[in-house]
Amino acid sequence: MLNVTPPVPSFSVPCHMGDFQRLLTWRVSPVFQDVHVMIFIGFGFLMTFLKRYGFSSVGGNLLLAAFGLQWGLLTQGFWHLTDGKIKINIFKIINADFSTATVLISFGAVLGKTSLVQLLIMTVLEIGIFAINEHLVANVFEANDVGASMIIHAFGAYFGLAVARVLYRPGLKNGHENDGSVYHSDLFAMIGTVFLWMFWPSFNSAIAEPGYTQLMAVINTYLSLAACVVSAYAISCLVEHKGKLDMVHIQNATLAGGVAVGTCADMNIGPFGAMLIGFVAGIISTLGFKYLSPILAAKLGIQDTCGVHNLHGMPGILGGLAGIVAVALGKKDGKAAMQAAALASSLGFALVGGVITGFIMKLPFWAQPPDQNCFDDSIYWEVTKNENTDRKPLKQIGLHDCFSSGVNILKGNM
Amino acid sequence: MLNVTPPVPSFSVPCHMGDFQRLLTWRVSPVFQDVHVMIFIGFGFLMTFLKRYGFSSVGGNLLLAAFGLQWGLLTQGFWHLTDGKIKINIFKIINADFSTATVLISFGAVLGKTSLVQLLIMTVLEIGIFAINEHLVANVFEANDVGASMIIHAFGAYFGLAVARVLYRPGLKNGHENDGSVYHSDLFAMIGTVFLWMFWPSFNSAIAEPGYTQLMAVINTYLSLAACVVSAYAISCLVEHKGKLDMVHIQNATLAGGVAVGTCADMNIGPFGAMLIGFVAGIISTLGFKYLSPILAAKLGIQDTCGVHNLHGMPGILGGLAGIVAVALGKKDGKAAMQAAALASSLGFALVGGVITGFIMKLPFWAQPPDQNCFDDSIYWEVTKNENTDRKPLKQIGLHDCFSSGVNILKGNM
Amino acid sequence: MLNVTPPVPSFSVPCHMGDFQRLLTWRVSPVFQDVHVMIFIGFGFLMTFLKRYGFSSVGGNLLLAAFGLQWGLLTQGFWHLTDGKIKINIFKIINADFSTATVLISFGAVLGKTSLVQLLIMTVLEIGIFAINEHLVANVFEANDVGASMIIHAFGAYFGLAVARVLYRPGLKNGHENDGSVYHSDLFAMIGTVFLWMFWPSFNSAIAEPGYTQLMAVINTYLSLAACVVSAYAISCLVEHKGKLDMVHIQNATLAGGVAVGTCADMNIGPFGAMLIGFVAGIISTLGFKYLSPILAAKLGIQDTCGVHNLHGMPGILGGLAGIVAVALGKKDGKAAMQAAALASSLGFALVGGVITGFIMKLPFWAQPPDQNCFDDSIYWEVTKNENTDRKPLKQIGLHDCFSSGVNILKGNM
Repeated sequence: MLNVTPPVPSFSVPCHMGDFQRLLTWRVSPVFQDVHVMIFIGFGFLMTFLKRYGFSSVGGNLLLAAFGLQWGLLTQGFWHLTDGKIKINIFKIINADFSTATVLISFGAVLGKTSLVQLLIMTVLEIGIFAINEHLVANVFEANDVGASMIIHAFGAYFGLAVARVLYRPGLKNGHENDGSVYHSDLFAMIGTVFLWMFWPSFNSAIAEPGYTQLMAVINTYLSLAACVVSAYAISCLVEHKGKLDMVHIQNATLAGGVAVGTCADMNIGPFGAMLIGFVAGIISTLGFKYLSPILAAKLGIQDTCGVHNLHGMPGILGGLAGIVAVALGKKDGKAAMQAAALASSLGFALVGGVITGFIMKLPFWAQPPDQNCFDDSIYWEVTKNENTDRKPLKQIGLHDCFSSGVNILKGNM
Repeated sequence: MLNVTPPVPSFSVPCHMGDFQRLLTWRVSPVFQDVHVMIFIGFGFLMTFLKRYGFSSVGGNLLLAAFGLQWGLLTQGFWHLTDGKIKINIFKIINADFSTATVLISFGAVLGKTSLVQLLIMTVLEIGIFAINEHLVANVFEANDVGASMIIHAFGAYFGLAVARVLYRPGLKNGHENDGSVYHSDLFAMIGTVFLWMFWPSFNSAIAEPGYTQLMAVINTYLSLAACVVSAYAISCLVEHKGKLDMVHIQNATLAGGVAVGTCADMNIGPFGAMLIGFVAGIISTLGFKYLSPILAAKLGIQDTCGVHNLHGMPGILGGLAGIVAVALGKKDGKAAMQAAALASSLGFALVGGVITGFIMKLPFWAQPPDQNCFDDSIYWEVTKNENTDRKPLKQIGLHDCFSSGVNILKGNM
Repeated sequence: MLNVTPPVPSFSVPCHMGDFQRLLTWRVSPVFQDVHVMIFIGFGFLMTFLKRYGFSSVGGNLLLAAFGLQWGLLTQGFWHLTDGKIKINIFKIINADFSTATVLISFGAVLGKTSLVQLLIMTVLEIGIFAINEHLVANVFEANDVGASMIIHAFGAYFGLAVARVLYRPGLKNGHENDGSVYHSDLFAMIGTVFLWMFWPSFNSAIAEPGYTQLMAVINTYLSLAACVVSAYAISCLVEHKGKLDMVHIQNATLAGGVAVGTCADMNIGPFGAMLIGFVAGIISTLGFKYLSPILAAKLGIQDTCGVHNLHGMPGILGGLAGIVAVALGKKDGKAAMQAAALASSLGFALVGGVITGFIMKLPFWAQPPDQNCFDDSIYWEVTKNENTDRKPLKQIGLHDCFSSGVNILKGNM
């Protein structure tokens, strides 16, 4: 009785321009969902690698992104009012998702050492500053940055690093027992890694010109990421004790190719150009985790929990530089000087904005966790007593109620 | 040697009506896959929060949904025979997935306290009753319910609650040691939460009119969910001890905005209308978990394992009410009275159908688990002896073979 | 101030042929992303069921697939040069993903018993041999195999089994304490299972003729998989002790319907034809896990870690046979003899190629793990000392440095 038939939709479709445009717009919808997955699953689970901080990672990510996208719609909308109104379409909500990515990157730098209240403040300020820089880069410099190596990745990373510098905690100089992973937390983090890795072609092509150019952005990103995996694994083996692989490198450096090819993704750089960028990004990123991060922490006081400098910072700059070269070589219309201005502007806004934001976040009434309770969900979340036996008994926390959660502020407990 | 080229598909495409319709139909395919992810990953992992019931949650979800979609194709097909045959197209399989959602919602109410045989019986009856109510709402009342706040969410929730009432277990009055989460099981549940949250715009727009209306359904749902996250977090902090967040609220109440905006998703309610609905839904849902569920369990004997009343029940009614108001205000063609009839019909069929189904499920030969083995996979699944050390030795189960699995019935062991 | 408006894309779209083709091509992009998810999340997490081998499973999968897709682009491109160049489009990258699937299937057979260096060698050889067989089947025999039951699933499985036979380890005859799952590792594996299950309709329809035929491939696969779940659960209950379900069956046999309907997916076999194929595949696969795998290991020396013979081998042959019957019955244009030749060719290339590859992999300088360190991440990965307490202290490994990782070879430590 069952029978497959060709679907005959009940709506009629005249073949004119409007429908065509509607179709082309609609085609963007799966891309939107892919970007959405990167923001909420990708960033959220990538940060669950910490052994006792999974709730804060994936839960904090959800709050910051859901709050941030509303704020991002408003701030980006200010630049494009129509009759005094903000018009919403599918590109606007993709852009709103994009703007939250900067915050989630910065979140990685300060992960485990900040309260949700501090992070919400950071969200408000960072998205505001992002919108200014984005407007400058896109509309004043008219620079190319289709996959946002500069305006999202480098910006988010250096913003977060500046905040981390201001919030430097000498008490964590010698590490913290919860600042590390356990076996299963590393597997949860791989869910984030792999979803980011898979959908990066959609991220880098989401706002590319439809058709051939957009397809090229997909393929360039696909190839860059593939090459990056190979170099990240190779370097991880080469630098580690007895040639073992390190999950930190695999979870992060394999993604650097997506960051670094962002600016050039829609340029005619050829498959080998894309693969070269990815290959170099994988090397730089892995070496950064191994050698540079410890130096930044020890010498400069930059405690970068997730190593965003290695995943987003340096690969983002690499992407910006590659864009300058590619434009100079005529791989896409544009001016190399304007590309350079865009990179400088992104770094400048990030560092200055991050320092200012850091000082605001440092004000003593935002319910910061004390050093001994960093990297521990139980300070902000109800955590079941009856836990895995691997759970050590909680230290008696000598906190005032005002520390237990920032929202207490709202309740007037301070 | 490698070279990116514009793709030149080998098939030729004349530009006439039929192709256009084919394209429009095809556009639905990614939406179908998104809905599929919600049904199988979303619902499946959302229920893995229980510490010893993950196999039954994600595995039971797979069985019920895979069985249910076949049955759903048949029951919904009965209303739309073509020459005595059921025609299958992409909309039909989306609808088949939809019909299973009602069962998976009800599953949440009785999770941990029923055998697979009982649940399969529930699947058969519930989808049958759903198909009648759906036909009534869509074709007789001609009511709007594009995102199915009434016919799926409220229906599924109250059906499940009625079943749970009939299956009331006094022995679980004081709780059960396995009726709770551990750290990692809460993280598994967040996989379900986040995938549901992300793809809800596809769910609410899947059967909307293509083009502008469908886009509006995407955007309204996106905004409602974002607002809902903010209110759910805020209320969770405010009501919990020392302002801590509760994972139960975050896993569930953050989704209430998707439920509640369902009926109105394709109506011209404006962005702030959508956000208001989501914001209110997040508040109601979180308060329900905190204050109402304990009362329902203690006073009315409704033991709602997953709190579906808070995630699907009340937000579903809210969605239905919002639909009545929106239609009355002319936000979409329709009659407010018919919207009200649809809501009443959905609740009526759910409660009556659920009670009848509950009594059938209560018959003593469906391999129900005894109280002490509730919330424990090992009664229906092979669970490795050599487990995590957090695993307490299994109690000696004093079961007859006939209890060990419902499928033993088929084997003639009873 | 916010206002939803119909999106007005800034690009203009003339309604001519080229745009139409572009749209049709673009429609493939979400399908590409679905296939990508199957390759990287699906296969990757499916293999995380082993208690101490999750890093190697999901991490090894990422490396092999990312490396393999580059090699696959090259080897498959050799057959289709344009002016001496390999042209890349969306179909080419889908095909590159496909070619890696064969390797990931074979990986399952030798999981836990091989080094990454051995696996990279297998990747190079297997994709090369796959490309030859694929060319033969598609262009010489002109056989139908839209979902690749023969050229991917049967090929990958028997290739892997041949390799496993050559690499037979008598020392593992009586099992290995790490060759099994723990509770949470089984849940991680279900992430892989469910994503494979959900997106299989995209896999089987990815290269089908657009329009009605492609839609039919989606629906046939959807139905086959649904029927397969039901039979896999039923048989698992029937054959297990006390009617309990076994996670190994649920994780694997529920997918056999996707494999088996592959060849016939775009043929007019009707819904019941598709369901019959899935139902039988679920039975065969579950029985294979229960009864055949132990015999293969004990009598033939084929130690098939993941049971790929049951998931991909027998269901792949079933798919090939169903294709012969369907073509003979005129369900699609083609010659039954050519279908048979395609099946024979796939099996022949797999077995001969696998044996040769196995002997190359057996050469003693590829850093094979010794028996006692099989199924253990810590031989190739940095694993935190401070672990779950369920982690037994590592045995002192009496390895030469040259065993600790294959990449040491590159470092000149040998």
